[in-house]
Amino acid sequence: MPDRIPVAVLGATGAVGQRFVQLLEHHPWFRVAALAASQRRAGQRYADACRWALDGDMPPSVRDLALRPATAEALGCPLAFSALPSDVAGALEEDLARGGVVVSSNAASHRMDPDVPILIPEINAAHLALLDAQRRGRGWTGLIVTTANCASAPLAIVLQPLSDAFGVRHVHVVTLQALSGAGYPGLAALDMVDNILPYVAGEEAKLEREPRRILGRVVGTEVQPAALVISAQCNRVAVRNGHTACLTIGLERRAAAEAVIETLQGYRSQVAGLGLPSAPQPLIVVRREDDRPQPRRDRDAGGGMAVTVGRIQPCAVNDIKMVVLAHNTVRGAAGGAILNAELLAAEGYLEGWR
Amino acid sequence: MPDRIPVAVLGATGAVGQRFVQLLEHHPWFRVAALAASQRRAGQRYADACRWALDGDMPPSVRDLALRPATAEALGCPLAFSALPSDVAGALEEDLARGGVVVSSNAASHRMDPDVPILIPEINAAHLALLDAQRRGRGWTGLIVTTANCASAPLAIVLQPLSDAFGVRHVHVVTLQALSGAGYPGLAALDMVDNILPYVAGEEAKLEREPRRILGRVVGTEVQPAALVISAQCNRVAVRNGHTACLTIGLERRAAAEAVIETLQGYRSQVAGLGLPSAPQPLIVVRREDDRPQPRRDRDAGGGMAVTVGRIQPCAVNDIKMVVLAHNTVRGAAGGAILNAELLAAEGYLEGWR
Amino acid sequence: MPDRIPVAVLGATGAVGQRFVQLLEHHPWFRVAALAASQRRAGQRYADACRWALDGDMPPSVRDLALRPATAEALGCPLAFSALPSDVAGALEEDLARGGVVVSSNAASHRMDPDVPILIPEINAAHLALLDAQRRGRGWTGLIVTTANCASAPLAIVLQPLSDAFGVRHVHVVTLQALSGAGYPGLAALDMVDNILPYVAGEEAKLEREPRRILGRVVGTEVQPAALVISAQCNRVAVRNGHTACLTIGLERRAAAEAVIETLQGYRSQVAGLGLPSAPQPLIVVRREDDRPQPRRDRDAGGGMAVTVGRIQPCAVNDIKMVVLAHNTVRGAAGGAILNAELLAAEGYLEGWR
Amino acid sequence: MPDRIPVAVLGATGAVGQRFVQLLEHHPWFRVAALAASQRRAGQRYADACRWALDGDMPPSVRDLALRPATAEALGCPLAFSALPSDVAGALEEDLARGGVVVSSNAASHRMDPDVPILIPEINAAHLALLDAQRRGRGWTGLIVTTANCASAPLAIVLQPLSDAFGVRHVHVVTLQALSGAGYPGLAALDMVDNILPYVAGEEAKLEREPRRILGRVVGTEVQPAALVISAQCNRVAVRNGHTACLTIGLERRAAAEAVIETLQGYRSQVAGLGLPSAPQPLIVVRREDDRPQPRRDRDAGGGMAVTVGRIQPCAVNDIKMVVLAHNTVRGAAGGAILNAELLAAEGYLEGWR
Repeated sequence: MPDRIPVAVLGATGAVGQRFVQLLEHHPWFRVAALAASQRRAGQRYADACRWALDGDMPPSVRDLALRPATAEALGCPLAFSALPSDVAGALEEDLARGGVVVSSNAASHRMDPDVPILIPEINAAHLALLDAQRRGRGWTGLIVTTANCASAPLAIVLQPLSDAFGVRHVHVVTLQALSGAGYPGLAALDMVDNILPYVAGEEAKLEREPRRILGRVVGTEVQPAALVISAQCNRVAVRNGHTACLTIGLERRAAAEAVIETLQGYRSQVAGLGLPSAPQPLIVVRREDDRPQPRRDRDAGGGMAVTVGRIQPCAVNDIKMVVLAHNTVRGAAGGAILNAELLAAEGYLEGWR
Repeated sequence: MPDRIPVAVLGATGAVGQRFVQLLEHHPWFRVAALAASQRRAGQRYADACRWALDGDMPPSVRDLALRPATAEALGCPLAFSALPSDVAGALEEDLARGGVVVSSNAASHRMDPDVPILIPEINAAHLALLDAQRRGRGWTGLIVTTANCASAPLAIVLQPLSDAFGVRHVHVVTLQALSGAGYPGLAALDMVDNILPYVAGEEAKLEREPRRILGRVVGTEVQPAALVISAQCNRVAVRNGHTACLTIGLERRAAAEAVIETLQGYRSQVAGLGLPSAPQPLIVVRREDDRPQPRRDRDAGGGMAVTVGRIQPCAVNDIKMVVLAHNTVRGAAGGAILNAELLAAEGYLEGWR
Repeated sequence: MPDRIPVAVLGATGAVGQRFVQLLEHHPWFRVAALAASQRRAGQRYADACRWALDGDMPPSVRDLALRPATAEALGCPLAFSALPSDVAGALEEDLARGGVVVSSNAASHRMDPDVPILIPEINAAHLALLDAQRRGRGWTGLIVTTANCASAPLAIVLQPLSDAFGVRHVHVVTLQALSGAGYPGLAALDMVDNILPYVAGEEAKLEREPRRILGRVVGTEVQPAALVISAQCNRVAVRNGHTACLTIGLERRAAAEAVIETLQGYRSQVAGLGLPSAPQPLIVVRREDDRPQPRRDRDAGGGMAVTVGRIQPCAVNDIKMVVLAHNTVRGAAGGAILNAELLAAEGYLEGWR
Repeated sequence: MPDRIPVAVLGATGAVGQRFVQLLEHHPWFRVAALAASQRRAGQRYADACRWALDGDMPPSVRDLALRPATAEALGCPLAFSALPSDVAGALEEDLARGGVVVSSNAASHRMDPDVPILIPEINAAHLALLDAQRRGRGWTGLIVTTANCASAPLAIVLQPLSDAFGVRHVHVVTLQALSGAGYPGLAALDMVDNILPYVAGEEAKLEREPRRILGRVVGTEVQPAALVISAQCNRVAVRNGHTACLTIGLERRAAAEAVIETLQGYRSQVAGLGLPSAPQPLIVVRREDDRPQPRRDRDAGGGMAVTVGRIQPCAVNDIKMVVLAHNTVRGAAGGAILNAELLAAEGYLEGWR
């Protein structure tokens, strides 16, 4: 792989930053060439600056990289993955895009900018159309695309085929979210032993807003949000990885459970023909056992990029209910951002490099 | 307390049976005089036959009791608490009632019998009216009352005041249920470390059916179920005690969150004046913190008999959403059955004894 | 209780500070009159400044207390309990003692000062003899006594009777320590799910040093440490409260397991006649079941102040092995410091007040 | 791989049986051709009879295999892996060996038979010498070899190099054992939340006995046990996989920590040249970080077949102390038995097949 594209990881010492580093270790198109973290750590060796929190050990190839400042010049890469905290991501990512860098971000800062797509290639690849307006409007030679929030992503993925087939009027979603969604160190062990927390700061608002934009249609230079209404209640549970969501859905056109199952299983990804390395086959895994999906058994389906759906049943209040599970730091964060960059590469946004 | 009523506990070695024994240890009206378990254990010392699974130690006063057969004669008590498994509870409880015993049961066997009340004194004391028909129709000198399922009880308790004040059209409920709900040994530790289960066998059907009967009105010799529609999704989490439920509720008459809070806080128990020892004051505790209720912090409110409600917010899909928590083996099982017996004693069903 | 002694709690917002507040709520001799935390919080309401981490709710009586600076004048109490972090406890506690305050400290700062006793009333009340030298030598009208480290305390308590009866040559101890020993927030939940940590910073050195001093003899104005040798390996486990320790002990005079059991059960506390409210009866609980002690079942023995010992067996390498358990934030921290203050009160060190 | 040896797995539905199936899925020398479980399940489809308890899904290649009776004829394989429970393994394994089958067993039944080796290829390959006597003495055409107990195996692996280099007089070992060591379902979740158990039935005796035999020398037709003395205290912790052991070791010749580290790192496996597929490189991984080994981070070292050692320090009571970790169902069970079979294949005991 002599010509893999050199990429930078911003916020490389955090939980999602580490996941980027791990997932990119053997990536066929990209190789980690630069790492950045907070300003005060610039110059430090990655192995010294980062307390590795994932299973296994830090990849040897990055241990000796010196942390760089997060500027286009210092990074020297055409592509950057951002795992920056929201309070600094906003300005930093803009500076990079202005400096010519393609930024695939996991931060929430720009998700609601009208000219920035929340991209999930399998279901809304057409939102790339916003990028022309973004570059023209901002005068950037680089660009910014973002992932959905870790709980919004699987929700949107499941709603897209249902929306196509039956129309979705409204969704009530109750989540049981994993610890890693709060970063590292995140939650205190003392709070999570023999306990759950019925609260994830800011999450319910994101879940009620983001999927509508993701499922929307590009009209001119903006996204017209989908018409569905979402209500969310978010809980934290003592699971390391894997967000579970219990959904009840009101459809435009009634559908039997079996028709819903077939629709989800038969969904054809919008990037099916592109050979994107991180796109799972299939995108949606339907389980028919009573007690699935379970975070520990199903979060790694499709290399952590698939969404697993189970317990699809008629609902006495709405039309259909189901349980949805996805890996929150792979599909819902680093893996999703890598897939977004793969789509950008495939569509020519990294020309000269690929 | 020289004249406490002697009571029997059936299924005394199981998780709920132990909770009965624990809660009755210092009860002002009742004293444990007889214990029964499965036939093959009759004659064994309780301390030998029972692996104590609750915190603390087995009460010294019961350690040396010999397990008896579960017949009215052998037990010799006017009142029996049943923690029997459903497959044997049905016939055994009937035999006892026929033999003159007042049976306060936690088993599901008779919950749906038209002449057996699912009793929650604070909200449906009027269902005692079924007992006349029960005794006449069955020719019993004793009687049977039952508790609600451990997850149904707090749901019904919260719906009653809302129903009175605003009318309830439908409820969607997602539970995060504690391990003790499955008895002991119950769930395997290997399944619950770093995991949740999206399934509790038989529970969703109970939750969709029982509260309608509990909230119903006695018409003649039957209960006319409440008109509301319930849909449930049940999950198991690695919490020892305390079922959490996320509710979204469609009301007949719209209500602001603050009005709902006031309604719940202001609810007046139907047994408020009777001085029942296990009735909590207040019945419903409303928490306004973002991150409450939590199982470990709130399950013991009101000695485990109160229901704690939090995160009361408007719902984009329905009218109001909230999180409800109660101790599943106290309010939702043994404590509820003891309170039922207290009501029976106060209302004269144990005459001669009190 | 009109004449309870007004006491201050220093470091009141931390995990051990909260435990002081909780344990003192209904104390017959002491009442919480002043709370102090870090300088920048002075003036804040306790309920606002403190995120309550214990079960149940913050005692209503302290919710509205304003946090004070930690000076003798500002506190205005003859007795102060210190839950200060070690980096500030040293100087602050000295200032208070100089200002006339009796300081019962849980901090490690002064534990190794030659004139400061590490006090465990039941086993080394005679170490009070150091206080004369302390006051004379330092010119203080107040004084400082300290508790042992949370893992050292139960170790010393068990070794004292064995030392009296058989002589102890050496001890190897392996601990399984609870999360609360690291304070709040302490350990990350992500590190403790499906995991243990084989390391507790600084703990092994304390365990190898402190018990020797606690078990030592006062000679003149100093403690001559006991001759025994201790080796420790410390682990952290996902238990909220209750440190477990596996001990193997080399004795001077061989002893059968039964003799060891009798010795531990028959130990007579050195403060048995003083009526100290927090002194448990018995001090040492011996369990003969195969699978005890367990943290969750045994940590609350004696109100959290007893030490539970089990699995007492002959050891193929040394003489005897056993498992020891105690509540680390009660016996091993706040409860121990309160008991120390009770001894000081009983011995006249708070004269004028009691 | 057209000529892989067909193998049977006995006790295939249990926790260790499943691990055999999982580890053999892509094995270069062996392929699963027959599965057996309890008599009453014979004929059932594996996917129907077995509740898969490992991460991921059951390998597709075995889902449709019908369970067979555990006889040489019915199995039709030259090699069988036994994960049978001890109460049935004894006679069944003998019958198979009599019938010509090479049995690599994980059961304890025959471990202490004088003519059956407890085999750990890297450290006692010479114990194969017992097999001649076994076959002659019993008149078998097949044979039986066994693995060590899951906690004994890593202990013996670490003691072998230390014994070679310094001589080992005695060892005191305290274990923190994983849930999977108790099989499935095994421990109750209710017992393991916020708790540890200071007891593993029968384990301490095995740990005190087996390593002496494993480290012994074959003299004539028997193993002369190593002279070292072992004392064990065994605990169960809420970890899914990975037994941790805290060791303190008395050596014949004193050794600095650094010399011990070098000895462990430099140990040369006795089967280093044989190319056994499951033999890890290196066998012993030494970690120098303060907080390693940890079960979750280190159990999968060397594909679960390596032993990780950390916290190597001088001991005040003995000579050296350390923490040892290995995967209990891979190195300590199924993986170990597969490695044993690989050695047998390499040494010609499966002639005609390889």
